[in-house]
Amino acid sequence: MLHNALSDLAIVEGVSFVAGPTCGIYLAQMGAEVIRFDQIGGGPDYNRWPLSPEGASFYWESLNKGKKSVALDLARPEGRELAQRLAASTGLFVTNYPVDGFLSYERLKPLRENLIALRIMGWADGKPAVDYTVNAAVGVPLMTGPVDAKGPVNHVLAAWDLLTGAYAAFSLVTAERARRADGRGREVRLPLADVAMASMGHLGFVAEALLGDGDRPRVGNNLFGAFGRDFATKDGERLMVIAITPRQWTNLVGALGLAEAIKALEAELGVDFAADEGPRFTWRQRIDPLFEAAFAARTLAELTPLLDAAGVTHGPYQPTSVGARDPRLAENLFDVGHPSGHRYPTPGAAARAHGEERPAPTPAPRLGQHTDEVLSERLGLSAGELGRLHDQGLIEQT
Amino acid sequence: MLHNALSDLAIVEGVSFVAGPTCGIYLAQMGAEVIRFDQIGGGPDYNRWPLSPEGASFYWESLNKGKKSVALDLARPEGRELAQRLAASTGLFVTNYPVDGFLSYERLKPLRENLIALRIMGWADGKPAVDYTVNAAVGVPLMTGPVDAKGPVNHVLAAWDLLTGAYAAFSLVTAERARRADGRGREVRLPLADVAMASMGHLGFVAEALLGDGDRPRVGNNLFGAFGRDFATKDGERLMVIAITPRQWTNLVGALGLAEAIKALEAELGVDFAADEGPRFTWRQRIDPLFEAAFAARTLAELTPLLDAAGVTHGPYQPTSVGARDPRLAENLFDVGHPSGHRYPTPGAAARAHGEERPAPTPAPRLGQHTDEVLSERLGLSAGELGRLHDQGLIEQT
Repeated sequence: MLHNALSDLAIVEGVSFVAGPTCGIYLAQMGAEVIRFDQIGGGPDYNRWPLSPEGASFYWESLNKGKKSVALDLARPEGRELAQRLAASTGLFVTNYPVDGFLSYERLKPLRENLIALRIMGWADGKPAVDYTVNAAVGVPLMTGPVDAKGPVNHVLAAWDLLTGAYAAFSLVTAERARRADGRGREVRLPLADVAMASMGHLGFVAEALLGDGDRPRVGNNLFGAFGRDFATKDGERLMVIAITPRQWTNLVGALGLAEAIKALEAELGVDFAADEGPRFTWRQRIDPLFEAAFAARTLAELTPLLDAAGVTHGPYQPTSVGARDPRLAENLFDVGHPSGHRYPTPGAAARAHGEERPAPTPAPRLGQHTDEVLSERLGLSAGELGRLHDQGLIEQT
Repeated sequence: MLHNALSDLAIVEGVSFVAGPTCGIYLAQMGAEVIRFDQIGGGPDYNRWPLSPEGASFYWESLNKGKKSVALDLARPEGRELAQRLAASTGLFVTNYPVDGFLSYERLKPLRENLIALRIMGWADGKPAVDYTVNAAVGVPLMTGPVDAKGPVNHVLAAWDLLTGAYAAFSLVTAERARRADGRGREVRLPLADVAMASMGHLGFVAEALLGDGDRPRVGNNLFGAFGRDFATKDGERLMVIAITPRQWTNLVGALGLAEAIKALEAELGVDFAADEGPRFTWRQRIDPLFEAAFAARTLAELTPLLDAAGVTHGPYQPTSVGARDPRLAENLFDVGHPSGHRYPTPGAAARAHGEERPAPTPAPRLGQHTDEVLSERLGLSAGELGRLHDQGLIEQT
């Protein structure tokens, strides 16, 4: 079964915020045992918003689904030594702790020669950075937002964190594959900054900025370089509509009754909008009023079959509360009870093997729920040793 | 070597736009042979903007680095049959072609019993969707942008596409691992919509919208639930600054000389900003003027050491043209010549194994550069057969 593919792997994670924890979810949802350790009482992300009405972090419990939890006192040397031993214990460790701190690879490798440690970093040189500061550095906030926005517009979605988390899962499985071949441990370093800059390169932004038309100005809600934007409908809805291929464009123009008007515009401008997607973007200020009027004259219910028949991609904007109940998005949402005491729609693995069942997601642990069990199994601590650590406040079991 | 970990794998891709092509880059940069096939003359993404001054697509060449290219006439049955045979030939196929079309799993499986086909989809039911329409459905554009923005604000960065590409690479390597264990082929379906909704769940947006404070209103450039936003400096720069831990907050307040003013505000409001990050967000309209004045009184050069010493994460906003030349981002950028005839900074794999060399990226192929070589090697076509296919215009070699 696809979702058992990693069931022979156990991964320890010492991570906070988004990138590391999502990596762990992805691994756990493919069958791996994922054990996270945290400071007793919770690390820096344990109380992050959004919160439940009772004050529990929906954020933390949503980012740590399907994992085991060990609570240690990381402020004391003996607690740190336990964390080091745990980090090395399964041979696979994911962390965003500093490159040169007590969880450096140099300190861990003597505990397990073939250890793979995947280290999520900020800048490649080890200096701290987060999604927001990396985003500021690569230029996205100066291109995002309404044409008349002043200054940078941050994204709300932590896109670089999420991308780093998925790429981390890919990198970890790849490094484990390399170890199968050569038996060697490795520290794999994955800086958020490199993920972001690589993506800007892959998408052509770097070439555009340096050799093309320069830094891209804001284009509002328009799809860059083709036809795509949002439109208001007669009944007050708002739709995103995209037409890239010649067929999509021609069908859309026809469906909206704009064939004559577009033909006249093409004659005036000496362009062929169907043959080349670029002029649809270049001349958008001439095209847009035609489409705005056509959309404003029809309700969403009238437009939907027209747009479906034209083969364009389209869809209404809706808030998350509606999205979470949208039948089109419900396939991978399961009703799960969480440590906060609340039940809510909860995603399983986004990938599924056709014809195989996709397991329902399991909730996050309580902080410290598996401390004794994990330290006994992974570090071979006896009941007496666990008792002494509890007495000294170095570990906590909940 | 980490970057050889996939060197025993060959992957065929029949993909366009962003998610599939980035998946292929990630696999190629870890050593896999990645062979893409396209319509002769280019598929729907071959002329996508941004373009070079001469009209070549920076987009296409940036998204297809390190791959081989086969050009076929996919409009004719014999070209489609070649694509089917090629798709099955290596046992690993990545595609965003429709689930029920000529590259359906049902049609390919008879050609290779243990085929793994990873299918990037729009909606889970097979209906078309793209990043923009999925984004509209999950609610992000209604939370993004300035507080006073009217209507949705699309992101410029195709975040869901990028995330799907990285998760696709993870899923493919995972599925190949499953096949090593059980010998079975599979169709792995990965809908953009499920990737997006899963992420909204992982980040706590779903719980917040349904059970917490409801759909999140726009909060401009603020970090939700803690202290973080952009500030203007005396010399006209703009900085993103984030303080989450008690120590970061206290250090920042001290470094900016705001300790007394913050203490007075805490007394007035009956809160402890250091102990709890939430009130820093709740009371941001009272806090902000203090910080705005403190930043506006100092230049970027004065602020940088203060902020470094305080241990907060911070950084200036800059356009992509500056980011691409930023020494902090240069570590993974290589000077590479591309099919467009231009040389520009080009990213290698974002992950590296510490102590191992990271290979320089290799450029994209010309469209159809490897047609004869691949069809000979993978499908066993003779020189005579290739000649016939060329004569009939079914394949093209460049």
